[in-house]
Amino acid sequence: MNIGMLGTGVVGQTIAAKLAENGHAVTVGTRDVSQTLARTEPGAYGQPVFSAWLKEHPGVSLGSFADAARQAEVVINATSGDGALEAIALAGASNLNSKIIIDISNPLDFSQGMPPSLSVCNTDSLGEQIQRACPEAKVVKTLNTVTASLMVNPRRLADGEHHLFLSGNDVEAKAQVVDWLKEWFGWKHFIDLGDITTARGPEMYLPLWLRLWGALGTGMLNIQVIK
Amino acid sequence: MNIGMLGTGVVGQTIAAKLAENGHAVTVGTRDVSQTLARTEPGAYGQPVFSAWLKEHPGVSLGSFADAARQAEVVINATSGDGALEAIALAGASNLNSKIIIDISNPLDFSQGMPPSLSVCNTDSLGEQIQRACPEAKVVKTLNTVTASLMVNPRRLADGEHHLFLSGNDVEAKAQVVDWLKEWFGWKHFIDLGDITTARGPEMYLPLWLRLWGALGTGMLNIQVIK
Repeated sequence: MNIGMLGTGVVGQTIAAKLAENGHAVTVGTRDVSQTLARTEPGAYGQPVFSAWLKEHPGVSLGSFADAARQAEVVINATSGDGALEAIALAGASNLNSKIIIDISNPLDFSQGMPPSLSVCNTDSLGEQIQRACPEAKVVKTLNTVTASLMVNPRRLADGEHHLFLSGNDVEAKAQVVDWLKEWFGWKHFIDLGDITTARGPEMYLPLWLRLWGALGTGMLNIQVIK
Repeated sequence: MNIGMLGTGVVGQTIAAKLAENGHAVTVGTRDVSQTLARTEPGAYGQPVFSAWLKEHPGVSLGSFADAARQAEVVINATSGDGALEAIALAGASNLNSKIIIDISNPLDFSQGMPPSLSVCNTDSLGEQIQRACPEAKVVKTLNTVTASLMVNPRRLADGEHHLFLSGNDVEAKAQVVDWLKEWFGWKHFIDLGDITTARGPEMYLPLWLRLWGALGTGMLNIQVIK
């Protein structure tokens, strides 16, 4: 498949690498290609310098946000929370049209230090904002409740016996995303929370997730819902 | 033990009944005793009319918020979110002094319909507001992430193999609350999230919890944290 990845951070890199490894053609989109290639600092989570990482992954190419969206059969939004709406705008409504957008972003606000608060919550969510920004697209919020390395390898934890959530207005799009997440990464357990307004739930779970990370000393964690 | 319970709703009733059954003396506090006894409507969750319920539970007595706090060795706040700070104020700083307050309340705002939003979140929490309202007391936020009947009987679900969270500034108070929750109700698994500011996490989990209830069709649910 042709997959458009918005965002060059650890989430975008981790997922792009895994998808390319599985034979997919991934175009990673960024605001300024030459600036991204000129980066000399390693990633915030110890990733290599971006241009070096790109050379190591021949199945991944770099382009503008619009380049990433244009050829894509599915678009994955893996930008930071504060960059998400700009990335969607730059990707362009005509490139996104009625495509599925898997939205992984979290509206984390680091401006007041650690742990971050949320820049949108309670009566709105970033998932809803993205859906409003491209009404024809089918936004499916998922994967935002786990760390990048667990997104692409859920069986690293309890053989995958833990849950992912899905929020989105289009039932068929959610079913398609479930099939992809099973096929691409081996996810086993999903809970469809409902329409895109339910993205408030998994986004507002982040403050608990961040404190669980602090209490447990690892971000390699997830929750199993028991009923 | 002498236990002071703030709140006459389903959480207060469920916990008071269980504690009285185990031989504790529980004083349930309310704003207006005669008004509470004069209620003729059943509880919102199908509980009997309050005065009838009280007669069925001889180990439970009714008093003002101050009465409930005055004799208590531990105070449990089980009011609604919008009544919590008033209840704490009426209980009185001199009655609460340096006691442990187990705070179960959630700042749910039903004014815009269902599902509720939160009246405080993100950069503050109800747990913190209560701690600020009675600085000498030892507020421990816990139990607010599960439904009332599960609070007092965690083994109804997966034999108790799921988690409770604790937030509070006083480490010894949290350890004492853990001992009580084991002894009173049979809870097995706890995660100490840190100081009272970490109450933002479990309170902001409520929007996810509410949507899990909707998706799964039952509030008899909890999460197991896997790492």
